[in-house]
Amino acid sequence: MSRIALIVGAGSGNSAAFARALAEQDYRVVLAARNIGKLDTLCKQIGAHAISCDAASVASVNELFESMKQDVGLAYVALYNASAYTAGPITSLDPELVLDSLMKTAYGAFLVAQQAAIGMKQLGGGALFFTGATASVKGFPNFSPFAMGKFALRGLAQSLARELGPENIHVAHFIIDGAIASPGRDLGSDEHVTNVGDTELEPDAIAQTYMAVLNQHRSAWSHEIDLRPWVETF
Amino acid sequence: MSRIALIVGAGSGNSAAFARALAEQDYRVVLAARNIGKLDTLCKQIGAHAISCDAASVASVNELFESMKQDVGLAYVALYNASAYTAGPITSLDPELVLDSLMKTAYGAFLVAQQAAIGMKQLGGGALFFTGATASVKGFPNFSPFAMGKFALRGLAQSLARELGPENIHVAHFIIDGAIASPGRDLGSDEHVTNVGDTELEPDAIAQTYMAVLNQHRSAWSHEIDLRPWVETF
Amino acid sequence: MSRIALIVGAGSGNSAAFARALAEQDYRVVLAARNIGKLDTLCKQIGAHAISCDAASVASVNELFESMKQDVGLAYVALYNASAYTAGPITSLDPELVLDSLMKTAYGAFLVAQQAAIGMKQLGGGALFFTGATASVKGFPNFSPFAMGKFALRGLAQSLARELGPENIHVAHFIIDGAIASPGRDLGSDEHVTNVGDTELEPDAIAQTYMAVLNQHRSAWSHEIDLRPWVETF
Amino acid sequence: MSRIALIVGAGSGNSAAFARALAEQDYRVVLAARNIGKLDTLCKQIGAHAISCDAASVASVNELFESMKQDVGLAYVALYNASAYTAGPITSLDPELVLDSLMKTAYGAFLVAQQAAIGMKQLGGGALFFTGATASVKGFPNFSPFAMGKFALRGLAQSLARELGPENIHVAHFIIDGAIASPGRDLGSDEHVTNVGDTELEPDAIAQTYMAVLNQHRSAWSHEIDLRPWVETF
Repeated sequence: MSRIALIVGAGSGNSAAFARALAEQDYRVVLAARNIGKLDTLCKQIGAHAISCDAASVASVNELFESMKQDVGLAYVALYNASAYTAGPITSLDPELVLDSLMKTAYGAFLVAQQAAIGMKQLGGGALFFTGATASVKGFPNFSPFAMGKFALRGLAQSLARELGPENIHVAHFIIDGAIASPGRDLGSDEHVTNVGDTELEPDAIAQTYMAVLNQHRSAWSHEIDLRPWVETF
Repeated sequence: MSRIALIVGAGSGNSAAFARALAEQDYRVVLAARNIGKLDTLCKQIGAHAISCDAASVASVNELFESMKQDVGLAYVALYNASAYTAGPITSLDPELVLDSLMKTAYGAFLVAQQAAIGMKQLGGGALFFTGATASVKGFPNFSPFAMGKFALRGLAQSLARELGPENIHVAHFIIDGAIASPGRDLGSDEHVTNVGDTELEPDAIAQTYMAVLNQHRSAWSHEIDLRPWVETF
Repeated sequence: MSRIALIVGAGSGNSAAFARALAEQDYRVVLAARNIGKLDTLCKQIGAHAISCDAASVASVNELFESMKQDVGLAYVALYNASAYTAGPITSLDPELVLDSLMKTAYGAFLVAQQAAIGMKQLGGGALFFTGATASVKGFPNFSPFAMGKFALRGLAQSLARELGPENIHVAHFIIDGAIASPGRDLGSDEHVTNVGDTELEPDAIAQTYMAVLNQHRSAWSHEIDLRPWVETF
Repeated sequence: MSRIALIVGAGSGNSAAFARALAEQDYRVVLAARNIGKLDTLCKQIGAHAISCDAASVASVNELFESMKQDVGLAYVALYNASAYTAGPITSLDPELVLDSLMKTAYGAFLVAQQAAIGMKQLGGGALFFTGATASVKGFPNFSPFAMGKFALRGLAQSLARELGPENIHVAHFIIDGAIASPGRDLGSDEHVTNVGDTELEPDAIAQTYMAVLNQHRSAWSHEIDLRPWVETF
């Protein structure tokens, strides 16, 4: 029987590429997002199930997992890929948008991780992945809300890596350091004229590393992996 | 005219010691906390002003700064010392308490930093300090909410250090790595039998370093300082 | 034509596993070590070439690369896997052994990286990997020589990642955090009774991640990757 | 009786400022450098003793400590301030200069720390300080030798902080992140026209923080402190 993978904060970039890669390795994929209309094509392509969810809402996340349990099953893999931020000098930020950023980037990750971990403990194992950013390890000027959210996400991932590892649940935090290219390119071809010189991260290239980490033997797990273009200044 | 210092999350430990040290260097001190009854003695000792405030509430933080502006003046120094957490395996945490932890530990810091920065820009300078913990840099198992909050606080501090430094506002993040001793000991004496061997951080010793950082020449500012007992395992 | 891979500090653990994995992907493998007698069996198994080399000696490293150029060709992949250390309280360490540790763990890595980079620039690309340890990011008491060597190695890797990336040379630093199991186990089987419960890193599991990083698309390269057993305390 | 302080790698910048600050607090100061002719004026000003020493040589460091023991006494404070580096693309670096850099920046620190620790253990306590740089935590392109040396120095400091703390020896690593101003300015005055706007670290400002850390109560020691100008980009 196929294992089940859940992607929260699914869109058209690295999450879609990861969904396709999972489907190729025979996972049944569930995509969750606030607006699932945009996911129709992907769902058809890979036979995925889409569920609408506001990741920052306790009730909505509970419904998502309830619905999965009834219709699909428990997730063996879960990726939290959602985030939101507002930028600007601290003196001119809107406190409501800052809260929204913290809720979607970090608190939602907690809610999803909690429900996912409950299921993975029942399954006897699993993988819990978090998509971070440059802002996960460096707070840039005028980006305090994003730094708060992404640092918090990393703290959550670190804590859970230590807590859930011995329960056979592989927790990994990915630091995406650079711009992600528009989706559509087939790696190995040169067709993708919008990413000349590979200066932006190809979604499929990100997904390839997510899959490599997912397939690691548990005697040698990675817990934090950086990913950036070869020409990126860092 | 004396400069004004604000301590949010004031209690009886390192915040009280910092308040006394500020008063000794002629600062007018304002103490903010949810319950200000406990601050009576300290207020009398050092002539401080106490204002009740829920740091995680936009309205309450706005009132605090409004009240300060009318009755005392703009803060040249602000320390965010508040935090809250709930602990346990992720599968048994109460989501409401996790949110509360994130709000008090990180979001409140943003709200206070925002209002403080507005005032400091008017003053042409200032100092914005944040009290972190071991959990600011390491996520321990069963402490995911605290790691989230303290990592987020560090992200905020890092971002603001870069953003506000060139505005002559000194942002510093202190990593308190160890248990803080009960207050009351006079450093240099041996009277404090509850901290035999200096195995816990003395509040006055923490305050001494806060003051040293506050008094740094701006050509050589520290932005992150760790503090731990000489015998601490780390 | 097959690409060439060089492993300096080759032994029977993760370096041998990486050598086998490279050979399976059609690389021609060159193994360098001070004592190459121990490499006979491996060389026969995978058709590798062994060259004796003292990595801390400029002359010996130059000879290694000269010999490769004449007999095999330029290395497209180079792994520095050598290290040495002496341990104990700083007051009782032998300065000569400390120097030896620094030379073999860090200076030799520089020498090999320099010669390898010269060749990779001629090839128009390549991959330069360094095997680090827990001591690369944390200095433990009584292990100051190892911390010095492994920190230095990480500094070298970081600097070269930024310098050589834009020359199409992928520099990656692996943090091996835990004990490495005795070689011999076929992953997926349970035959390896000395590593019950996968509490030590399987050499083949480490090699699998080295290969995954080697095969990353250059739009999404990893530069630092941690590896540890699922049950490791960290 | 005055305590004794040793500064290895003494010159005219932050080490001279630290020497003056120590003398003001009644320390007897010993200055060690390869060329001690340049230290004459400073020695007269503060009554310091100068000893010629090549910090990267076991014999020379042993002579330094032997000479101190006979003529002055055991050092309660020791600062390692020496370093050397060569820069450039890795493919064009001179291996001999790279080794020299590693020896002076890191191995010399080990030799001095070893002899200093032996003396401090006899004294029952002390302080062992290391001057790091931006390169201690970030490896820049074309600066691989400096990154190797300064990373190694940090590894040494971290290991010793954990090892010697419980022996009442305070080990601290200072990250000097920015250019150091030419010496001579009296902090608080505006006379020093070469450092307009405090964009470079004033030697006296660095020394002030070294002294603050030296005078910390052992219940709240700092082990790593960053120092940079208020306008520094980091």
